[in-house]
Amino acid sequence: MPTHAFGAHAADQPLVPLDIDRRAPGPRDVQIEIAYCGVCHSDLHTVKSEWSGTRYPCVPGHEIVGHVSAVGAQVTGFKVGDTVGVGCMVDSCQHCAACDEGLEQYCTNGFTGTYNGATQDPPGHTLGGYSQRIVVDERFVLRIRHDAGQLAAVAPLLCAGITTYSPLRHWNVGPGKKVGIVGIGGLGHMGIKLTHAMGAHVVAFTTSESKRQDAHHLGADEVVVSRDADAMAAHAGSFDFILDTVAASHELDAFTTLLKRDGTLCLVGVPEHPHPSPNIGVLIFGRRSIAGSLIGGIRETQEMLDFCAEHGIVSDIEMIPAQAINEAYERMLRSDVKYRFVIDIASLAK
Amino acid sequence: MPTHAFGAHAADQPLVPLDIDRRAPGPRDVQIEIAYCGVCHSDLHTVKSEWSGTRYPCVPGHEIVGHVSAVGAQVTGFKVGDTVGVGCMVDSCQHCAACDEGLEQYCTNGFTGTYNGATQDPPGHTLGGYSQRIVVDERFVLRIRHDAGQLAAVAPLLCAGITTYSPLRHWNVGPGKKVGIVGIGGLGHMGIKLTHAMGAHVVAFTTSESKRQDAHHLGADEVVVSRDADAMAAHAGSFDFILDTVAASHELDAFTTLLKRDGTLCLVGVPEHPHPSPNIGVLIFGRRSIAGSLIGGIRETQEMLDFCAEHGIVSDIEMIPAQAINEAYERMLRSDVKYRFVIDIASLAK
Repeated sequence: MPTHAFGAHAADQPLVPLDIDRRAPGPRDVQIEIAYCGVCHSDLHTVKSEWSGTRYPCVPGHEIVGHVSAVGAQVTGFKVGDTVGVGCMVDSCQHCAACDEGLEQYCTNGFTGTYNGATQDPPGHTLGGYSQRIVVDERFVLRIRHDAGQLAAVAPLLCAGITTYSPLRHWNVGPGKKVGIVGIGGLGHMGIKLTHAMGAHVVAFTTSESKRQDAHHLGADEVVVSRDADAMAAHAGSFDFILDTVAASHELDAFTTLLKRDGTLCLVGVPEHPHPSPNIGVLIFGRRSIAGSLIGGIRETQEMLDFCAEHGIVSDIEMIPAQAINEAYERMLRSDVKYRFVIDIASLAK
Repeated sequence: MPTHAFGAHAADQPLVPLDIDRRAPGPRDVQIEIAYCGVCHSDLHTVKSEWSGTRYPCVPGHEIVGHVSAVGAQVTGFKVGDTVGVGCMVDSCQHCAACDEGLEQYCTNGFTGTYNGATQDPPGHTLGGYSQRIVVDERFVLRIRHDAGQLAAVAPLLCAGITTYSPLRHWNVGPGKKVGIVGIGGLGHMGIKLTHAMGAHVVAFTTSESKRQDAHHLGADEVVVSRDADAMAAHAGSFDFILDTVAASHELDAFTTLLKRDGTLCLVGVPEHPHPSPNIGVLIFGRRSIAGSLIGGIRETQEMLDFCAEHGIVSDIEMIPAQAINEAYERMLRSDVKYRFVIDIASLAK
C-alpha cells in the first residue's frame, strides 16, 4: 500500500518527502491512518546515525496516534474507527522472561523498534510514524481514551510520557514522597505533570532561571536552578527519588547528594559523552543508587495512557507540518520548543 | 586508666608503642579487655591521613574482640567475663530516623567512629582497638557466641563481615539467586563465605588465576578471572546481585553488563581515584543499578555475628604481634595476606 512519508536517504541528508509501502494487514494486524506523530530526540539521533547502525531510507517517528482503518481477521481488541496509538516498539520475541512479565522493552532477544528495527517487510527495516499509515500487530497497539480534541497532544505520551511514567511507578512515587525532575524539556515536562498527578511533592531542576514560571505551571511545587549552589545545598539529603531526563553529559554528584538514604537517581538518557564519573562515597554513605530505565512495557503504556486520560494530562506541543521537520530538528537542538513538536500528518497529503 | 597501645604521632610516622588513658566506665559503659583486633585497610588510610582529617596521636582498630572487665551501674545487657566485640562505631545521635531504624551507620548527625571520632574523652578524639582496653556505651557492644578458640578469627567480622553481610541482606540474597563477589581479599573472602551460607549461587571474580582454588575452598561455586573476556561474556545478563569489594579504580561496565534486568552492582569501597565513568546505556537497557553500602547497624551486626556463629563462619586470618604492624601494612598494600591480619593484643604487655 503506497504511503507518503518523510525521511532521510543518508546520515548527512535532510529529511525529504518519499513514498514507502505498507504491508497489507495480516490476520493479527491493525492498519492505522496516522493523524499526528511526535518528534523525539531519538528521531534525530537515528536520522543522523549518531548511535550508528541506521539503515536508509530512514523514516523516524515513534509517538504515533491515529485511527484504525482496517483490522485482520483474528484481531479482537480493535475495530475500524478506534482511536489508537503506537509507541517505540512494534514487536518482541513474546517468549522470554521479560516479555512474559509484560516488559517487552527489556526483551532479552531485542524488541523491534518502530523504526530502524529488523522486519521481513520491505525494505528490511521498520519505517516509523512520519508517514500516512502504519500496520502493526494488535499486541503493540494502544487504546486512546482522551477527548478527540486532545489527540495531537497525546502523541508524545507514547515515548516521553511512558519513559517518565515507568520509572516513577517502578520506584513507587506517590503521596508523601519528595521527587526531583531534572531538566524541563520533552521528557522533563511530562515528568513534572505525572509526578504531580501521582500526588508527590515535585521539585523541578533546571539550568535556566527563565523556566521557573513554566515549571510551576506544569505542576512543580518548587523550582531549583541547579547552578545555584546554595539553593541546591538547601535540598541535601531530602529526596526519595530523582528522575534525570538530561542526556547531555553533566555532573551526577549534584543530584546524588540530594538523595535521602536509600534514594535513587534514575537516568533515562544515554549521554553522547560520558558523565563525569560519579562519586562512589556519596552512594556508600547513604546506600544510594544510580539506576537507568527504558521506556515501558505495552501493558504499562496502556496504564499510563489511561492514567493521563483520567487526569487530563497531555503534552505541551507545537504543531508543525512535515515540511518543517528539518527546521524543527535545528530548534530542538537549541531546546527551542515548548515542549514537543508534533507533526500534523495531514500535511503529507500536500 | 593507663592503657598500652600502638599508634602514630603523624601521617608520615610509623606506628609505635604509646600510652593512652581510657575513661572510667560511666553508668551505661562497658569496659572491655581487648584480646584481638583485626587490621582493616581503613586503619592504614586513617593513619596516613589519606582521607584527610586524621587527628594525632592516631590509634586505629575497629575489629575488636575481648572480655568485659567492668560494667556501669545501669548496664543491663552485659556482665563481667562476657565475650564481646566492638566494630566501627561507638556512638551516634540516637534520635534521627536512621538511628530509630537501627541504621546508626547512616546517622544523619554522623556516627562516632571507633577511632578518629569526636569525643569528650581526652585527647578529644576516639582511640581504637590497637590497645589493651576500651570503654564503650553498651548500646554499641556486641555479644559473641562463637567458640572461645575462634575468637581471634571473629574479630574481622566486626568490619569486613558486616560490610559484606549488610548489602547481601538488603538486596535479598538467598536460595535461587546468582550472586557475584568481586575481589578476594579481606572483604571479598567474607562475602564469598556469607553468600554461600545464605544459599545463593556464588561466583567469585578475581584478577588473579592463583586465587581460583582458594575461592572454591571459601565457598565459590564458580570462579571467573575478570581479565578473561570470554569467561566474562559467558555470564552476561545473568546476575541478580554483584557485590564489588575492590576499592582500587576499575571498570564497572565489566560487571554491570553481567547483571540481569533489575540487578544491582553494589560497591563498598571508596576509590582513591574515580572509577572510569560507568556506561549509562548499560543501566538503562536493563533497569540496572549501581549502589553503595556502608558497614551495618548495631542490630544487624549482632544478627550477622549470630548468623556466623550458627554457620561456623569466621575470617581466615594471620595473627601478628602489635610490633609487626608496620610490616603488616606494607604487606596489606601488596595484598599479601590471606585474608586478614589480626593483632594479638597480649603482645602489647611486652
